[in-house]
Amino acid sequence: MPLKSRLVESLRKIDALERGSSFLIACSGGLDSIAATYLFAALARDWDLRIGCMYIHHGLREEADEELTFVRETAASLNCEFYSTTVDVAAEARINATSIQNAARYLRYDALERVREQHKFDWIVTAHHADDQAETMVAKFLQGAGILGLEGVRPKWERVIRPLLFVTKEELRTYAANLNLDWREDASNTSRKYLRNAIRLDLMPEIKELVNPGVASTLGDTAREFRMISSFLREHIAGIEGKVARRDGDSWRASLTELRKLSAGEQLLLFQTVLTTLTGEAPGHTILIGLLSLLVKEPGSVYTLQAGFEAKLEQGDLLLRKLEMQPDEFEYAWDSSDVLEAGWFRLSASELSPKNVTFNDSPTVEFIDLGISGKDFYVRNWRQGDAFVPLGMSGTKLVSDFFTDLKIPTHERGKVPILLAGEHIVWLCGLRLDDRFKVTKDTVRAMRLTFEQQAPQ
Amino acid sequence: MPLKSRLVESLRKIDALERGSSFLIACSGGLDSIAATYLFAALARDWDLRIGCMYIHHGLREEADEELTFVRETAASLNCEFYSTTVDVAAEARINATSIQNAARYLRYDALERVREQHKFDWIVTAHHADDQAETMVAKFLQGAGILGLEGVRPKWERVIRPLLFVTKEELRTYAANLNLDWREDASNTSRKYLRNAIRLDLMPEIKELVNPGVASTLGDTAREFRMISSFLREHIAGIEGKVARRDGDSWRASLTELRKLSAGEQLLLFQTVLTTLTGEAPGHTILIGLLSLLVKEPGSVYTLQAGFEAKLEQGDLLLRKLEMQPDEFEYAWDSSDVLEAGWFRLSASELSPKNVTFNDSPTVEFIDLGISGKDFYVRNWRQGDAFVPLGMSGTKLVSDFFTDLKIPTHERGKVPILLAGEHIVWLCGLRLDDRFKVTKDTVRAMRLTFEQQAPQ
Repeated sequence: MPLKSRLVESLRKIDALERGSSFLIACSGGLDSIAATYLFAALARDWDLRIGCMYIHHGLREEADEELTFVRETAASLNCEFYSTTVDVAAEARINATSIQNAARYLRYDALERVREQHKFDWIVTAHHADDQAETMVAKFLQGAGILGLEGVRPKWERVIRPLLFVTKEELRTYAANLNLDWREDASNTSRKYLRNAIRLDLMPEIKELVNPGVASTLGDTAREFRMISSFLREHIAGIEGKVARRDGDSWRASLTELRKLSAGEQLLLFQTVLTTLTGEAPGHTILIGLLSLLVKEPGSVYTLQAGFEAKLEQGDLLLRKLEMQPDEFEYAWDSSDVLEAGWFRLSASELSPKNVTFNDSPTVEFIDLGISGKDFYVRNWRQGDAFVPLGMSGTKLVSDFFTDLKIPTHERGKVPILLAGEHIVWLCGLRLDDRFKVTKDTVRAMRLTFEQQAPQ
Repeated sequence: MPLKSRLVESLRKIDALERGSSFLIACSGGLDSIAATYLFAALARDWDLRIGCMYIHHGLREEADEELTFVRETAASLNCEFYSTTVDVAAEARINATSIQNAARYLRYDALERVREQHKFDWIVTAHHADDQAETMVAKFLQGAGILGLEGVRPKWERVIRPLLFVTKEELRTYAANLNLDWREDASNTSRKYLRNAIRLDLMPEIKELVNPGVASTLGDTAREFRMISSFLREHIAGIEGKVARRDGDSWRASLTELRKLSAGEQLLLFQTVLTTLTGEAPGHTILIGLLSLLVKEPGSVYTLQAGFEAKLEQGDLLLRKLEMQPDEFEYAWDSSDVLEAGWFRLSASELSPKNVTFNDSPTVEFIDLGISGKDFYVRNWRQGDAFVPLGMSGTKLVSDFFTDLKIPTHERGKVPILLAGEHIVWLCGLRLDDRFKVTKDTVRAMRLTFEQQAPQ
């Protein structure tokens, strides 16, 4: 079937095609969006469509000025309306402390939606295709997304549609070649600096050769099935939550008896859902498994989670709540892949082979056994009852006693960052490592930790 | 933590370690199983364990005789009991029409279970480790397994346990190197002929480098979460099935009203579960989506599935049933990745670029547009009312009329294999292609089909 007919079929499947419909196409000037623009323009007469074409200038690359002109001319040659806007990605990323890519994505959709509303288009069209879908699925799967995170690129989300998800890049290339179309190659698409490009350029060809030449279509089907299943799971879990739990501001309380009646899968999904909304970030596997095992513990048991939250068994309930902190109390979740910046200190980590561990006397650099610690840490100040095994000792010692030995004044103690893995202290940063996490001859993977102290702000 | 302690922890998690427990270790003489044998032997005294070691001679490789001797000597040096048996993999594969690898797996577990029972071991131990788990997950995901197929290698299944799933290959290698252990490398482990080896040797290193160095641990966690969720889903679907449907031999009947109340995800999982038990093979995505859309059709609508099954809307029910066939009727599902052997004919297919399509006059070789046909076919004899578009024509023609034109006698007509994609005839094999599936200039992926006729048996 020619691409045009497949586009019609695809638009009808998502109920986005009627006589007189209007589409605003996000067009970067690249192969995908240029092909999409020509396809829609080809459809316009048959269906009496109104087509707009929008170029977003991200202010990041020199070539953008020329691309804008090129897209404007393409739109004119096809009798499409043309829109463009310039967004300040760097500023957005700075203000919201997010990556350039996240900031660009947000600003792009925001600008498209403004134009759509103001100029009354029915739909925003992006040219995501089957290979984009497959790359998204592969990246998410290999990074550990659970079923709720494996839905892929959605064919329709509010007013944004992706009617080309069922077409491969190669099919778009053939279409463009047959029509002798011109387009612009974005140089950043070949930079291995971006994970997505490395997956596209290096990993996908290998997957197609070794495992499944039709992986794009296979993962498109998988995404579709996973969307159906996770949509059921979300509703099911929402129903359960409504029955067993109640929220109250920052805290969440559920009947332990009811929780224990659920299957492990339901418990897992419930905790995942609740923690994501409560703390604003998806909990890792370790935290979820920790919560599951808390359910069979004694009343009064406590489990500390990310972002200053704790789970506690209390009066027949499981209570998830934000810890009340004193003004100078702090607690940060730290997954050790990024640098942790906290005003008066800075923590960074890098993995290395035990062969490359070179011991030194600096109290600000330590090596630990990654196989024991894992990569998910949190960092907080000391609490009553904290104890650890100071490097070189075999028994535990109260942190308060350790501070006393070192003659650290009481008012300074609360500012010492303590690095924890699960419930165990790994390092009183800058002071002493815990003996249980040190690198030994059995260590297979090690991690170098660096602590930098800065003047309090 | 040293490997030995981690093994204890892992065994306790699956409730497989008590004082006096007995373990029969499947030992091939390779690094993994030799390390497992030494680890269990090291545990034996502390826990008063009884350890057996079993070598399975597959009769496939020359080196097996020497490996058997090596494993026997290893067992003796560790004071472990030793067992061995020879299995005839080739014969098993022939008799059950399965692959050598499937046959070997079946015979291996069967032989282990016999020895376990006869010699009263509590557990069979296999040395699957974290990298095996990750490779399994990657292979299944990329081949399109849904959530129910992504449970990975199970840590415990009846009397078989895999307590090393949380250990990486590298950790086993370090352990073996530290103890100066000897082992045998199986040459077939480096042959790219096997998908699994290609994934291990080529794909996984690339994934670790490009996407996630800790992919083994990530996918181990994913497998664990997916097991919990799919176990919930299986029970949930079984509960639904009990309420809405009843089975009767080869057929299955469910209330349409009740089916329509379910979410799409539940419908999908229900059909997947039912068809797998009913037909003995997991249905593909296309069949599942076809069934879902049947639910909103008019009474009387019919949808033909794999393996001679059909779905029909009848008296307010959805009825899945095996088609009653005349003695010489036949119907085969064919996913086109393997050769279809059916006594008097043989069909094979291979994908190729349209560039490489070379037309010829042979009626037994045809090229089709893979983008239109997809790869899932079935093959059956003609039925009343069958119609197609003979190559070169633009309208449909009844197959019976076509047979008459060709002067094919009535008693021969039932033997002509007809290849179908979904509900459409693709090819009256050896006679005429359907015009809608031919290769055109728009074709992006083509498939070469070869039909070989053999004397009826």
